[in-house]
Amino acid sequence: MEGVFVSDMIEPIRKRAKFSNRVYVLDTTLRDGEQTPGVCFTLDEKVEIARKLDAIGVDVIEAGFPVNSEDEINTIKMIKGLGLRAKICGLARCVTGDIDACLKADVDRAHIFIATSDIHLKYKLRMDEAQALKQAVETADYVKAHGLECEFSCEDATRTPIERLIKFYTSVESHGADMHNVPDTVGVMEPEAMQALIGVLCSRLKKPVSMHCHNDFGMAVANTLAGIKAGASQMHVTVNGLGERAGNASLEQAVTALEAMYGVKTGINLSMLKDASKLVERASMIRLTPNYPIVGDNAFAHEAGIHVHGVLAKAESYEPLTPEMVGQKRRIVMGKHTGKHAVSNFIKEKYNLSNEQITEVVEKVRCHTINKKKITEDDVTTIVESVLGSMSEEDRLVRLNEILVVTGNKITPTASVQLTANDARKVAAGVGTGPVDALSKAIQSALGEEIKLLNYKLEAISGGTDSLCTVEVEVEDNDGRTASGMAVGGDIVMVSVNAVMESINRIYAKRRRE
Amino acid sequence: MEGVFVSDMIEPIRKRAKFSNRVYVLDTTLRDGEQTPGVCFTLDEKVEIARKLDAIGVDVIEAGFPVNSEDEINTIKMIKGLGLRAKICGLARCVTGDIDACLKADVDRAHIFIATSDIHLKYKLRMDEAQALKQAVETADYVKAHGLECEFSCEDATRTPIERLIKFYTSVESHGADMHNVPDTVGVMEPEAMQALIGVLCSRLKKPVSMHCHNDFGMAVANTLAGIKAGASQMHVTVNGLGERAGNASLEQAVTALEAMYGVKTGINLSMLKDASKLVERASMIRLTPNYPIVGDNAFAHEAGIHVHGVLAKAESYEPLTPEMVGQKRRIVMGKHTGKHAVSNFIKEKYNLSNEQITEVVEKVRCHTINKKKITEDDVTTIVESVLGSMSEEDRLVRLNEILVVTGNKITPTASVQLTANDARKVAAGVGTGPVDALSKAIQSALGEEIKLLNYKLEAISGGTDSLCTVEVEVEDNDGRTASGMAVGGDIVMVSVNAVMESINRIYAKRRRE
Repeated sequence: MEGVFVSDMIEPIRKRAKFSNRVYVLDTTLRDGEQTPGVCFTLDEKVEIARKLDAIGVDVIEAGFPVNSEDEINTIKMIKGLGLRAKICGLARCVTGDIDACLKADVDRAHIFIATSDIHLKYKLRMDEAQALKQAVETADYVKAHGLECEFSCEDATRTPIERLIKFYTSVESHGADMHNVPDTVGVMEPEAMQALIGVLCSRLKKPVSMHCHNDFGMAVANTLAGIKAGASQMHVTVNGLGERAGNASLEQAVTALEAMYGVKTGINLSMLKDASKLVERASMIRLTPNYPIVGDNAFAHEAGIHVHGVLAKAESYEPLTPEMVGQKRRIVMGKHTGKHAVSNFIKEKYNLSNEQITEVVEKVRCHTINKKKITEDDVTTIVESVLGSMSEEDRLVRLNEILVVTGNKITPTASVQLTANDARKVAAGVGTGPVDALSKAIQSALGEEIKLLNYKLEAISGGTDSLCTVEVEVEDNDGRTASGMAVGGDIVMVSVNAVMESINRIYAKRRRE
Repeated sequence: MEGVFVSDMIEPIRKRAKFSNRVYVLDTTLRDGEQTPGVCFTLDEKVEIARKLDAIGVDVIEAGFPVNSEDEINTIKMIKGLGLRAKICGLARCVTGDIDACLKADVDRAHIFIATSDIHLKYKLRMDEAQALKQAVETADYVKAHGLECEFSCEDATRTPIERLIKFYTSVESHGADMHNVPDTVGVMEPEAMQALIGVLCSRLKKPVSMHCHNDFGMAVANTLAGIKAGASQMHVTVNGLGERAGNASLEQAVTALEAMYGVKTGINLSMLKDASKLVERASMIRLTPNYPIVGDNAFAHEAGIHVHGVLAKAESYEPLTPEMVGQKRRIVMGKHTGKHAVSNFIKEKYNLSNEQITEVVEKVRCHTINKKKITEDDVTTIVESVLGSMSEEDRLVRLNEILVVTGNKITPTASVQLTANDARKVAAGVGTGPVDALSKAIQSALGEEIKLLNYKLEAISGGTDSLCTVEVEVEDNDGRTASGMAVGGDIVMVSVNAVMESINRIYAKRRRE
């Protein structure tokens, strides 16, 4: 696969594996993903996510658990009404009421489940194996009698004796099940055991087998792929790995690994993965750690000198695939570990620096990191300019002389600023949804132009109200110039303003250089 | 293993695997972890992390890359001077200057590496195989001549032909290497191929083999364990999976899986994992996603009705191990998916509610989630009280009538409040490091008592300065009563104050009930 630089040692494994020609992707972000503690999508968000999942090429969307509520039924029905290419699936216990709710929600497929492990039968369902089996086959009959596709799951399959699993799956198959899903409900499996289990099931069943893995020990992706290697042809995934507890197998990781490592096709457009991830991040309010694989901010970021040097010489030295393939961008981050290579590469096209000056810039970059500041390419430009004497910290084009911001429970957040821009003194006020918004409006009013905020990212790690926070912003002026800014400190409002001012100064510096 | 509820299907895999009796843990949070783009630890933080790693039972601490700077050398030397039980290791390229830096840093072990893959040799090192091999063995000689332990890595081993790997490792072994580390530098392997590779290496080498896996495709933990199954007896890990790009194998996941799934011993005290994770989260300013395995906030949290019902009946229904085993706590979160079981279980010990009242409480809990609010147990208490008529939203004991907060670049953040507490009107002002801190001080002053803020957590997802943010707080009064509060909105300052007020009202409600 072009742009993929994985290990050749995978080749014999790939040849030996029993891959299906095409692996189908069932995304359950809207069902298992929404069961993430604290996550709740609005109707609009569900519709937007369903559209995005369809656009990236998901085959089946598990849109919810219809019996939960009338709202849930209506939401799923609305998603079904969008006329997407993807099939719409609803979850159901093995009781007729749940299937009736699926019918009301107008789904294409009912995903029915009943627990089969000793512990679930005994403590949760309080029924014996025979009762559970009876309910399962009767429900399959009912689903098929009503013309729906039937996907059947033995809940907690991986803690169920294998002979019992075979009995359940073959019985339900003979009652019309179209797909056998194998949930590793509590994430208690490892890849070799999973491959063995799925191998046995595939050899005993006529209908396709599907994977559903949880990430309790961090092995959801490896377990999912182990099942696919043994012949499973569908996988349940969620965007950003949302889901119960430690979540489900992540769509981005499972699909990218499957295509890049094993050359197995899914219908997914990999280049839209980052987009989908950002949408779900916003709607779920669950922010990804930067070191999240494939779609995280750091997945294609490099800081250490040796790595930056390697990536600049040949990107695949330290990248398993080209970032564009998954809708990402490479980022060279300058910081404590940055060597001369990164800095000199960045500036050599723009400036003519002596070796001594380069060393000075590198040293200043290192110094900046003492306060835990990340150094962006814009910061390096500023440092270079100060070394060259063309712009110093004191020589900023826009300077805030006075700012005052007021908020409270009975007033509209209000700010006033007095600033100097290109040596002219300006004063203005603004109001906004909060103090930062009000200040941002006041600054724009004083400058007499709109500086659009493209991105505002605030990090505050658990602590007291006096703990440090970090703000990173990205702004754009009316001519399309962009710049970033960053600040650290104890006052959320002032830190935000400082970051905005840093970015605005960079816009002004760019203009002067033009 | 007591308190572990994994799959029985792992048993035959465990028996077949070639586990070493004891697996050694080399933690590289302070070296590869610090290479996470944007992460930089201070000297104090490095010392604190090293002490914690030693306390939890890590065998080897890779404390840094001495040749980076004099600061790095001094930091490592200081860590070595702590007299920890763990061995101290320093990274070094295969050049004498790097070993000299290791000697200055007073490390026990030099971890020397040279790239061996075609791509790294050609584009990064610009040398041929023979040159690289010569440098490797000469460096091993130099390390041993100076009395250090020698761990040797073929960088990018997993993209190096296996015969070349064997040549490098056996040659360096014959020059005194004590440990062979196999880095999957770019995270390009999968478990079966890794198990095969490590099997070959273990059969050809006399000295122990070590794993070092990156997480680019989300398989670092599975690949690490695959190597351990093939006989490797050391693993490189980082706390919270920090490291280059998508990071390294996470200490918490790899160690817990190894012990719980395969019954293989490490020296790690699992019950301290959450502690170590929190320390590194704070120092790195890289916040974990709640669905991070083992140590994430949601790893043992349950919200959906079926899951809560199952966990309350028998925790192992939906938990692979007891949360206390890894220093965690179970959390029952009430939200959109909460069923009657969770709510009724929570309240039945405290209140006497009719079925109708329980239904009413469940409905109100569901309604609260429309604005994406997470519902804590405290919220449920409030709802129950309003259903019982004992306390309504309007009947709060502490009410903020007027608040005003001012901040700017030339003033100390200042706040004034006028509030009613137990029907008495109080007015006070306060100053602080930021507007939230100032308000918090003013409120405490008005109440005439210290309400300690144990925890302040702010979530703001990328967007404009007018985007929504969420604040969760936990407070404690002087008698040790604790309560939590949460609020959502567009004004960072007001949202913070609302969350604080909610928690204070709960403290007051608790007092009245006593």
